[in-house]
Amino acid sequence: MSITIVVGTNRDNSLSEVIAEHYQTLLQAKGSDCQIVNLQDLPADFIISALYKNSGKNPQFNLIREAVVAAEKLIFIVPEYNGSFPGVLKAFIDGMPYPKGFEDKKIALVGLSSGVQGGALALSHLNDIFSYLNAHVLGNKVKLIQIEKNMKDGKITNDLYNQLIDVQIEKFLKF
Amino acid sequence: MSITIVVGTNRDNSLSEVIAEHYQTLLQAKGSDCQIVNLQDLPADFIISALYKNSGKNPQFNLIREAVVAAEKLIFIVPEYNGSFPGVLKAFIDGMPYPKGFEDKKIALVGLSSGVQGGALALSHLNDIFSYLNAHVLGNKVKLIQIEKNMKDGKITNDLYNQLIDVQIEKFLKF
Amino acid sequence: MSITIVVGTNRDNSLSEVIAEHYQTLLQAKGSDCQIVNLQDLPADFIISALYKNSGKNPQFNLIREAVVAAEKLIFIVPEYNGSFPGVLKAFIDGMPYPKGFEDKKIALVGLSSGVQGGALALSHLNDIFSYLNAHVLGNKVKLIQIEKNMKDGKITNDLYNQLIDVQIEKFLKF
Amino acid sequence: MSITIVVGTNRDNSLSEVIAEHYQTLLQAKGSDCQIVNLQDLPADFIISALYKNSGKNPQFNLIREAVVAAEKLIFIVPEYNGSFPGVLKAFIDGMPYPKGFEDKKIALVGLSSGVQGGALALSHLNDIFSYLNAHVLGNKVKLIQIEKNMKDGKITNDLYNQLIDVQIEKFLKF
Repeated sequence: MSITIVVGTNRDNSLSEVIAEHYQTLLQAKGSDCQIVNLQDLPADFIISALYKNSGKNPQFNLIREAVVAAEKLIFIVPEYNGSFPGVLKAFIDGMPYPKGFEDKKIALVGLSSGVQGGALALSHLNDIFSYLNAHVLGNKVKLIQIEKNMKDGKITNDLYNQLIDVQIEKFLKF
Repeated sequence: MSITIVVGTNRDNSLSEVIAEHYQTLLQAKGSDCQIVNLQDLPADFIISALYKNSGKNPQFNLIREAVVAAEKLIFIVPEYNGSFPGVLKAFIDGMPYPKGFEDKKIALVGLSSGVQGGALALSHLNDIFSYLNAHVLGNKVKLIQIEKNMKDGKITNDLYNQLIDVQIEKFLKF
Repeated sequence: MSITIVVGTNRDNSLSEVIAEHYQTLLQAKGSDCQIVNLQDLPADFIISALYKNSGKNPQFNLIREAVVAAEKLIFIVPEYNGSFPGVLKAFIDGMPYPKGFEDKKIALVGLSSGVQGGALALSHLNDIFSYLNAHVLGNKVKLIQIEKNMKDGKITNDLYNQLIDVQIEKFLKF
Repeated sequence: MSITIVVGTNRDNSLSEVIAEHYQTLLQAKGSDCQIVNLQDLPADFIISALYKNSGKNPQFNLIREAVVAAEKLIFIVPEYNGSFPGVLKAFIDGMPYPKGFEDKKIALVGLSSGVQGGALALSHLNDIFSYLNAHVLGNKVKLIQIEKNMKDGKITNDLYNQLIDVQIEKFLKF
């Protein structure tokens, strides 16, 4: 089984990237084949060169698109921007093959926020989108609030967070 | 595997009941063990006698509650009331055992509406609630718009609707 | 201008009731005509005696219904139950006159939670419902997380909460 | 009073642009000062050159940003992409000044879809975002389903749609 973890922002040095690596380490320790795709690697002009009439025509965009299409399962690490997910993440989804790009994929969602909302609305919005595309979202969503206060040296220091992540991963592997 | 279909309203003679029977017939034809629970059978005063400090204490309410708890998979037939699901359905959920009442159940959602929205928001709201309770919702949601125009003698006359239902059931049985 | 504050649950001795009184005190200090309606006063069997074919026929239900219909502005105090609003609150809305029950009313939303979500999804779902009914919801929503830890003797002890409430009230009076 | 209408996609020759011009004509006939901003005019690389550490630094992006910031009222014309709004629209919002970019603005939402959903979820998601940013969204949302079938020569041929738009505009001018 192949799992792709998507870093859901194109911001430099994002905490989402650190969390993605944390998930990768945990999954590999359980023997999963697992790769990371970082939206930071999207071409700067993909909102023109890879969407609409240009869908599928940008080779650099297609590298990431194909890594997502090829996966059976996907984990999205989603920082909260303006009360929802990053626009870049949705624009990336808009450049995927339609309608089969996400069909029947199994998806797990992880939200991060500096504040206390933990991306509850961001993950709800994303769930709506993936349902629309006939993908199946794991009920257990991890919402990591006040993330800066709960990490040190690339590790999560909050025991409850680590426990929620373990439960999510365990269920996702069986999903 | 045991499937419970929930008629998501307590209104008399609801179309939701007819749709529930249609799903039951289709599921039984595929060999599934399948029962219907109708919110019309809820006690008239359950918002007092079966919630909060009285949770679990109303035997008539508990009959329905237990049929839901016992199921591995649940299908909710959800009419659109005021742009969302019926309040009675959420009040029923509020009377379920917490936090384990829906944990790890597999859920399929079917929305009905007289208008053209088909309960898109109703199903989104319900999905949020079931995710919160760590249940897993099938991506394929069936939204039956203008339902009165698309039924005759208890049968669905719209071929597209029948096709969407078949796909949903097929995927739900494997989910 | 007449403002009605709705205690959004029928639970006994709810914190929502305390918060409603707090809002009433603040509004009256600013000279507003302001009353509280408590869903605890709903008849125990209103899900049968005041909905659907019985809409408008239960005198005890109608007392509350009319207090809501008569108000130009409404403030809903909404505890988080199962990741959304209380089912009883939606069932109450289902018993309102349709389609004019909430049309063009101005609405402010206040969410409470024991946990850290503060009813973000509950308020989002309610906003969807009120929009569907052509009511207008103030952008500023107050979300009071970990409410038990931030109250003492019926007063809110968290300065940030008090400040958010003051801003919300000030904007709502001009809305 | 100054109203800015935002074409919510960067797709070429979008129907959203046609609808935006229709709203402009109607508003100007009522004496409103009204301009259109088209996301098609966003710089191709704005997801890098105008977000995060580069926020506010791209002059071409800032032209549009300032037209939005300067408006007292905003109308968003929002096509449905993948069950929600276009990612580019959210990325544009992510490049606005924070936290004051939308504060206290009055906003009206118009959804378009080829299918029957009319962007119900797209508009719900956007409402969540604008609420988070303390902007106020008009309850009346116009959802134009099966838009291609209901337009001819740049005009809306469906009487109900024209009526809903008239009501929305009338209420928005007083909002």
